[in-house]
Amino acid sequence: MTVTRSNSSVTRISAADIAQLVKGELTGDGGLLISGFSGIKEAKKNELTFLGNPKYEPLLLDTQAGVILVPRQITCPGKTFIKVDNPSLAFTQVVNHLLKDGPEYKPCGIHPTAVISPGAKLARDVAVGAHTVIEDGATIAEGCVLYANCYVGHETRLGKDCLIYPQVVLREKVSLGDRVIIHSGTVIGSDGYGYVPVDGKHMKIPQVGTVLIEDDVEIGANVAVDRARFDKTIIGEGTKIDNLVHIAHNVTIGKHCLIVGQVGISGSTRIGNYVILAGQVGVVGHLEIGDGAVVMAQSGVSRSIKAGEQVFGSPAHPVKDALRNNAHIQRLDKYVEMIKDLKKRIEELERK
Amino acid sequence: MTVTRSNSSVTRISAADIAQLVKGELTGDGGLLISGFSGIKEAKKNELTFLGNPKYEPLLLDTQAGVILVPRQITCPGKTFIKVDNPSLAFTQVVNHLLKDGPEYKPCGIHPTAVISPGAKLARDVAVGAHTVIEDGATIAEGCVLYANCYVGHETRLGKDCLIYPQVVLREKVSLGDRVIIHSGTVIGSDGYGYVPVDGKHMKIPQVGTVLIEDDVEIGANVAVDRARFDKTIIGEGTKIDNLVHIAHNVTIGKHCLIVGQVGISGSTRIGNYVILAGQVGVVGHLEIGDGAVVMAQSGVSRSIKAGEQVFGSPAHPVKDALRNNAHIQRLDKYVEMIKDLKKRIEELERK
Amino acid sequence: MTVTRSNSSVTRISAADIAQLVKGELTGDGGLLISGFSGIKEAKKNELTFLGNPKYEPLLLDTQAGVILVPRQITCPGKTFIKVDNPSLAFTQVVNHLLKDGPEYKPCGIHPTAVISPGAKLARDVAVGAHTVIEDGATIAEGCVLYANCYVGHETRLGKDCLIYPQVVLREKVSLGDRVIIHSGTVIGSDGYGYVPVDGKHMKIPQVGTVLIEDDVEIGANVAVDRARFDKTIIGEGTKIDNLVHIAHNVTIGKHCLIVGQVGISGSTRIGNYVILAGQVGVVGHLEIGDGAVVMAQSGVSRSIKAGEQVFGSPAHPVKDALRNNAHIQRLDKYVEMIKDLKKRIEELERK
Repeated sequence: MTVTRSNSSVTRISAADIAQLVKGELTGDGGLLISGFSGIKEAKKNELTFLGNPKYEPLLLDTQAGVILVPRQITCPGKTFIKVDNPSLAFTQVVNHLLKDGPEYKPCGIHPTAVISPGAKLARDVAVGAHTVIEDGATIAEGCVLYANCYVGHETRLGKDCLIYPQVVLREKVSLGDRVIIHSGTVIGSDGYGYVPVDGKHMKIPQVGTVLIEDDVEIGANVAVDRARFDKTIIGEGTKIDNLVHIAHNVTIGKHCLIVGQVGISGSTRIGNYVILAGQVGVVGHLEIGDGAVVMAQSGVSRSIKAGEQVFGSPAHPVKDALRNNAHIQRLDKYVEMIKDLKKRIEELERK
Repeated sequence: MTVTRSNSSVTRISAADIAQLVKGELTGDGGLLISGFSGIKEAKKNELTFLGNPKYEPLLLDTQAGVILVPRQITCPGKTFIKVDNPSLAFTQVVNHLLKDGPEYKPCGIHPTAVISPGAKLARDVAVGAHTVIEDGATIAEGCVLYANCYVGHETRLGKDCLIYPQVVLREKVSLGDRVIIHSGTVIGSDGYGYVPVDGKHMKIPQVGTVLIEDDVEIGANVAVDRARFDKTIIGEGTKIDNLVHIAHNVTIGKHCLIVGQVGISGSTRIGNYVILAGQVGVVGHLEIGDGAVVMAQSGVSRSIKAGEQVFGSPAHPVKDALRNNAHIQRLDKYVEMIKDLKKRIEELERK
Repeated sequence: MTVTRSNSSVTRISAADIAQLVKGELTGDGGLLISGFSGIKEAKKNELTFLGNPKYEPLLLDTQAGVILVPRQITCPGKTFIKVDNPSLAFTQVVNHLLKDGPEYKPCGIHPTAVISPGAKLARDVAVGAHTVIEDGATIAEGCVLYANCYVGHETRLGKDCLIYPQVVLREKVSLGDRVIIHSGTVIGSDGYGYVPVDGKHMKIPQVGTVLIEDDVEIGANVAVDRARFDKTIIGEGTKIDNLVHIAHNVTIGKHCLIVGQVGISGSTRIGNYVILAGQVGVVGHLEIGDGAVVMAQSGVSRSIKAGEQVFGSPAHPVKDALRNNAHIQRLDKYVEMIKDLKKRIEELERK
C-alpha cells in the first residue's frame, strides 16, 4: 500500500558474470568489478565499454575501461576483454540487466490519498503515489509507476511501463507511448503561446490541440511542452530531453533526437530524426531542421537547416564559417593596426 | 463535488453562423466551417481573419483565410467574406463566443481533499481542485477556478474569473487582478535574489515586498516571478508571458507586453507598455525599456532602450546596425584577404 | 496544527534601536526608521549600510543611506551614523535581528494531511505543511520547516533549520546541510542526462549517485539539480543560486558562489569558490572554473577559466579582449570603408 524498497541497489557486476550473461569469452581479470558504462573514449577503470566497429580498434590502446566487449576476431593484450558475436547487443544486455528493476525506490499499489476518478482506467499493476490526482477518462496501461503529487488530466493516456516522477503535470488529452520517463516539475500540455492583436489587446487564441509523446522518450525536470493550437505537438520515439527545455505549440520533434538543457523551440518548427540541439540553443518558429543536424551550444537558429548540417552562433552559421569568423574577430585588433599602417604608408607614397 | 465535462468541446462554427453572430452581411459559402483565428497573412483555409485597416486591402488577394471579416465598403471577389461595421470588434465577438466556456475540463465545487483555511474568503462559485491548499487570509473572487495541487499563500488575493492550472504556487500577499491565467508549475512571489557581502559570506537581504499582477495577464508554465525586496514587482494589464521566464524582484512590466519563452529580466528594471522581448532575451537590472520597444531573440540588453527602438545582439544594438555588422562578420574572410592583398601591393609600390 | 502568523511583520527599526543593539555610539537622528540594508553605493534613504574598510571613506560623501555603521575613528558630518568596533559584524547583527523569525508566515506542527512514512525520522519541532510527502528513511533535523505539497524521497537528509517552500521535490538519498533554503518548484536529485548510443538508440545510463547541498545554500524557484551518475553533485557552503538554473550531473560548485538566473552548467564541470556566473551563462561540461572567476551575462564558457579571470562573450574570452573586439565590430563599417578607400588609392598609385 505504501512504498517498498527493491533489492536492486547493488549495481556492481564482475567481469566473469558479464561474460556469462552475454555468452562471451573472457580474457583477463574475471573478478574485476564493473559499476558503470561508457563510450570507449570516456570510460573509466570501473566501467564497461564496447568496440562496435572494428575500424576503431586503435582506440583500444588508450581506453581506460575496466572491461571491453569486442568482436570475436579482436584481442586487447594486457586488458580485460570479452569476445562476443555482437558487442553493441551484448552491451545493451548488460545495461538492461543492471537496470531491470528501474529506480531503487518506487511506489507500489495505490496510495490511499491518491484521488482517482471512478471514470479513469488503470491496469491492475499500476502504482500511484500519495496525493496524485487522476482525472476522468484517463487510461494508464500496465507497469506504469506514478510517484506522489502528480496530476493526470482528463482523457490522458499512458502506455506501458511509464515512469512519472513526483510533481509532474500531464494536462488533459495528452498521449504517452510505452516506457516514457518524465522527471519532476515537468508540465506536458500547457496552452501554446498564441494571441491575435485586437483593438490594442492580445486576444487569446484557443489552444485545443494536444501532445503526443512516443515510445522510449525521456524528459528531464521542469520542462514545458505546450499543447498544439489544433492538431498535435509531437516528441518522436526515443528522443531524450534534458532539464528546463521549452517546446512550443505545434512543434514536431523526430526520433532519437538529443535536446539538451535550456533549449527553446518556437512554435510549429519541425525537427527531423537524430538531431542534436546543444545547451541553451534557441530555434525560431516555422523552420525545418533536417535529419542528423547538429546545433552547437547557445546558437540561435533563424533559418531552416539541411540534413547533416552543423551550425554555430547567434545567428547560427555553418560551424566552419562560424569558427573561422570567430577567429577573425579575435584578431580584429591586429587587422585594424594593419589597416592604419597601410593608410600611413599609402599617404607616404602619395606624398612622393 | 468532483469535476464535470463542459459541453463546449465543439469549436467549429459555420460562416453563416458567424455572420449572424456579428450581424454582418455574408457573401460566399455559408456552410464553410471555421475552427480557428489568425492574422490576415498567416490564416489558413479553416480559419477566420479580419481586415482592420482598409489600407491593407491588397493583402486580401493573397490571404488563405476561409472567411474574412471586412469593412462595409470592401468586397473580396471569389472569397467568402462578411461585411461588418467594425471588423476587429466583430472578430473579438467570434473569438469570445467560441471561448466563452473556457477550457474543456475544469473543476467545479470544492474538492473534499482541498485544504482551505477557515480564515480564507472564497466567493460562492469558486472551484478548487483536489489537494489544493489555501492559507489564512487569502481572498478569492467569484468565477475563479483553481485546479488540483495548487498553493495559495496567506493574504493572497485573486480577482474575478482567474484560471489557475494544476501545481501553481502563489506565495503570501500576492495580488492577482481579474481574468488572470496562470499555467502549471509557475511560482509567483518567490524571494528575490538579494545578498550583501559580509565577512566573505553572502548575507540574505529580506524580501518583504510582494507581487501585483494586473487584469488579463496570462503566464505560461514553469515561470518564476520574484516578490519585491520592498514594494511590488508588477506585471501590467494584458501582458502575456510565455514558459520558463524569469522575472526578478522589483521589476515593473507595463501593459500589453509580450514576454516570450525563457526570457530573463534582472532586478528593478522597468519595462514600458507594448514591449516585445523575444525568446531567450536577457535584460540587465536597473534599466528602462521604453514603450513599444522590440528586443529580438537571444539579445542581451545592457543599456536602457528608448520607446519604439528595435535592438538585436548580445550586447544588443539597434537592429539595423546589428544586421549590418553581422553581415560584415560573414565577410571578414574576404576583407582580410583584401588587406593582405593591399599590403603586398603597397610593398610592391614601396620597392619601386 | 495548521499555520500561525508570527509577530515579526514589522521590519522597521529606529537608528537609536540599532545603536543599542550593536552597542554603538549614535550621532544624528535617532528616530530615523530603517527598513532595509544595502551596500554603501546602492543604499537609499530608508536603508542601513556600513563602512567595512576605512579606505572607502570617500564613499561616505555620496552615500544616500539613512544610517551608516562606521569604525570608531570615523565621523560623517551631516549624516546619521553609528560608531562601532566592527562595522561588518554590527551590520550582520542588525540583519540577523530583523530576520530572526524568518518568513512572516510558516507552517507549524505536522499538518494532518501530510503523508509521513513511519520510517522517517523527524526532530520534535519540525513543521510540515499540508499534503507534503516524506518517504521512508528520510531524516529531518530540528528547526526545519517544510511548506505544503513538497516531496522528500527515501533516505534524504535535511540538516537543522532548513526552509523548504511549497512544491519542492527532494528525490531519494539527497543530503542538505544546515540552514538550506529552497524555493518553490525546484527539483533536487533528478536523473542526470546520460545515454550511450547502442544500435541507433540512446540507451539510458543509470544515474545512481546523489546530491550534496552544504550549509547556508539558498536555491531559487524552478531550479533543477541533477543527481550524479555515480558519486555526488555538490553545491558548496554559502553558495546562492537564482531561479531557473540547470545544474547537470556530477557538477561540483564551490563555496560562496553566485549562480544567477537561468545559468546552465553541464556535466562534471568543477567550479571553485567565490565564482560569479551572471544571468543566462552556459558552461560546457568537464571544465574547471577557478576561484573568484567572473563570467558575464549570456557568456558561453567552452574552456577552463583560471582563478580570478573575468570572461565575456559566446564563446567567452577575457573581458578586456571581448569588449575591445565588440567595439571593433561596431566600427566594422568604418573599417570596410577604409579598406575600400585604400584600394582605390593604391589602384591610383599603381596607375601612375
